[in-house]
Amino acid sequence: MSEFDLIRTCLTGIGALRDDVPIDVGDDCALLHVPADRELAVSIDTLVSGVHFLADCAPEALGHKSLAVGLSDLAAMGAEPAWATLALSLPSTDADWLAAFARGFDALARAQGVRLVGGDLTRGPLSITVQVHGFVPAGHALRRDGARPGDLVCVSGALGDAGLALQHVQNGEPVDAYLLDRLQRPTPRVALGELLRGVATAAIDVSDGLAADLGHILVASGCGARIELDRLPLADQVAGVITANMARGGDWDLPLASGDDYELCFTMPPEHAPELAVIAAAAGCPLTRIGEIDRRPGLRFVLADGQPWQPQQTGYDHFKGASKIT
Amino acid sequence: MSEFDLIRTCLTGIGALRDDVPIDVGDDCALLHVPADRELAVSIDTLVSGVHFLADCAPEALGHKSLAVGLSDLAAMGAEPAWATLALSLPSTDADWLAAFARGFDALARAQGVRLVGGDLTRGPLSITVQVHGFVPAGHALRRDGARPGDLVCVSGALGDAGLALQHVQNGEPVDAYLLDRLQRPTPRVALGELLRGVATAAIDVSDGLAADLGHILVASGCGARIELDRLPLADQVAGVITANMARGGDWDLPLASGDDYELCFTMPPEHAPELAVIAAAAGCPLTRIGEIDRRPGLRFVLADGQPWQPQQTGYDHFKGASKIT
Repeated sequence: MSEFDLIRTCLTGIGALRDDVPIDVGDDCALLHVPADRELAVSIDTLVSGVHFLADCAPEALGHKSLAVGLSDLAAMGAEPAWATLALSLPSTDADWLAAFARGFDALARAQGVRLVGGDLTRGPLSITVQVHGFVPAGHALRRDGARPGDLVCVSGALGDAGLALQHVQNGEPVDAYLLDRLQRPTPRVALGELLRGVATAAIDVSDGLAADLGHILVASGCGARIELDRLPLADQVAGVITANMARGGDWDLPLASGDDYELCFTMPPEHAPELAVIAAAAGCPLTRIGEIDRRPGLRFVLADGQPWQPQQTGYDHFKGASKIT
Repeated sequence: MSEFDLIRTCLTGIGALRDDVPIDVGDDCALLHVPADRELAVSIDTLVSGVHFLADCAPEALGHKSLAVGLSDLAAMGAEPAWATLALSLPSTDADWLAAFARGFDALARAQGVRLVGGDLTRGPLSITVQVHGFVPAGHALRRDGARPGDLVCVSGALGDAGLALQHVQNGEPVDAYLLDRLQRPTPRVALGELLRGVATAAIDVSDGLAADLGHILVASGCGARIELDRLPLADQVAGVITANMARGGDWDLPLASGDDYELCFTMPPEHAPELAVIAAAAGCPLTRIGEIDRRPGLRFVLADGQPWQPQQTGYDHFKGASKIT
C-alpha cells in the first residue's frame, strides 16, 4: 500500500463534519474559515515513542492521547476546539496499527466537534505531532499573566494519577483500570476552559506537574503563591503513596511533579468562589481551591500543621538525561 | 539548560514582526487574527533524519528547508504566508545546533513575512515538523481539481536539480554549488502562487516528482495530460544525465520522479498563454509550457520525435523499503 493509499484510507473523514472547512485532507493545504469575531488559538505538541509513551502502547489509546494533549492546551486558553492536523512518523506501513490509532483519534475528535483537516505520513521512528486549532472571542482568552495577589488558586480533577500509573507500569506491577485510564486516556477539560472565561484571571494546563506549570503562571504574572498540600485533590491510590512516607511530612512529588495530569490550574478573585460549585457541575469535573496568590515571588507549600514543605523535583523536563517515560 | 530555557532562547522572536499575533510563543496556545475576508490555508510537513535529510546536514540549511517545504504548499494554493509553528525532536540538548537551525529558519521567515508563533521541543530521534498558515481571498485558492481539457500544463524553475544533487551526495561525489543549493535551500514559489490566482485552473507543488504530482491534478480533475519531454526546463547538469542514456530515448526519471524540486506545476486556459512571460518576470522565476491537458485519463510522455516514452518510477513514496533520502 503506497503512502497516498494509506493516507486516503486511514486519515480522511476523521472527526466531526464541520461546515467551516472549504478544503479538507487531499490538496496542498486545507482551507479553513475562522469566524470574524473570533481569534484563532493554535498549539502543536509531539509525542515520541520511548519518551512520552511506551513503544507497545495500544494504538487506539495513543490516538486518543495525541489529540487530548492538544485539546488540553485549547482548554487552558478557554478556546472552543475546531480542527486538528496530524504529522505521523511510522517505522513501517502497518495498516492495522494505523486503523486503531485513527479510531482512538476519531472518537475523541467527534466527541469534541473536531475535524482532522490535514496530515503528513512519513517513514521514521514512531512519533506523533498534532496541532489543534480553536476559537476564542477576541480579547477573552485565558492567559498565564493575569493572576493577582489575593486570587484563589484552583485545580480541576485529581493530581498524580498518571504519574502513579506510570510508576506501576515501569515496575511491572499491576495497574488498576482507573489509574491506567488516567495515564492513557486523559480527559481534556474543554468545557471547563470555556466556562472559566470571564471568571479566571489566569489558567494553564497541568502537563509537566503542578509545581512547574503553576510556576509559569507566577512568573508570567509577576507574583507568588502559597499552596496548602492537604487541599490537593487526590485519588485514594495517590494519597496512599504520600502517607506511606511521612518522615518528611509525606512524599508530595507525585501530585506536584509527575506530569501528564492534563487538569487545569487557574486563579480567580475570591468573590467568584461561590461560583466554583456551579462551574464544576456544568463542566462535569471536581474543582478544588488549593491556595492563594500573594505578592512574594515563588511557590510555597504548606503542610496541614502549617509547616513549610520543600519539593525534591520541580517538574518534568524533556531534556533531563533520566527523564521519565510519560 | 532546561527545555524551557532552550525554547526561550532559541525559539522566540523568530521571523517577521506581525500585528496579527495577540499572543506569541510562551502561553498554552498562540492567538492569531485571520482577516474577515480571507480563508486560512494550513499545511503540516515532517522532515525525518535519515529519510528526508542526512543526519550531518548543516542545521542552518535544515532550518531553511523545513520552512521552505511548507511555504511551497502555501504557494501551490496561491496563499500569502503569515505564521508557522515548529515541533522539533532532538536527541540531545545542543544549543549550537539549535541556534544555527533557528538562524536558517529565521532568515527565510523574515524574507517571507512569516512569524514563528508556537513550538514544541522534545527529546527524541531528530525530526522536524512545521505547520505553515497563510491567507487566501475566500473562494480564490488554487486547487488541484480545476484542470480542463485544452488547458496548458506549465512548470516553474527547473526539474531534477535536487535529485541529481542527492545522487552525487550519496555517491560521495563532489556537488557543484548550484545543485547543492537547490537540494538544501529550495526557493518556495510564493510570489508566483499569488500571481497565479485567477489565471491557473489547478496547481500543485512538485515535491514527489512531476509525474506523481501532476498525476494528483489529473486524478482530482478527472482528465489526462500529454507532456512533451523536450520542453522540460532542465539545468545543463540534469540534461547531461538524460542524454548520457539515449538507449530508451534518454533517462527522464531524474526530472520526472526524483522529487524535492519545490517548483509549481499548474494548468491554465490557452488564452492566458501571452501572460506567462509577464507573470514569470513578476515572480522572478522562469515558467515553461510543457504540455496539454486532454480528456483521456492518464499521463503520457512524448519524445521530440513524437514517440511515446514510459517512466520507470512514478514518484517518491515515503514508505518504499528503499526510499531515497531527500
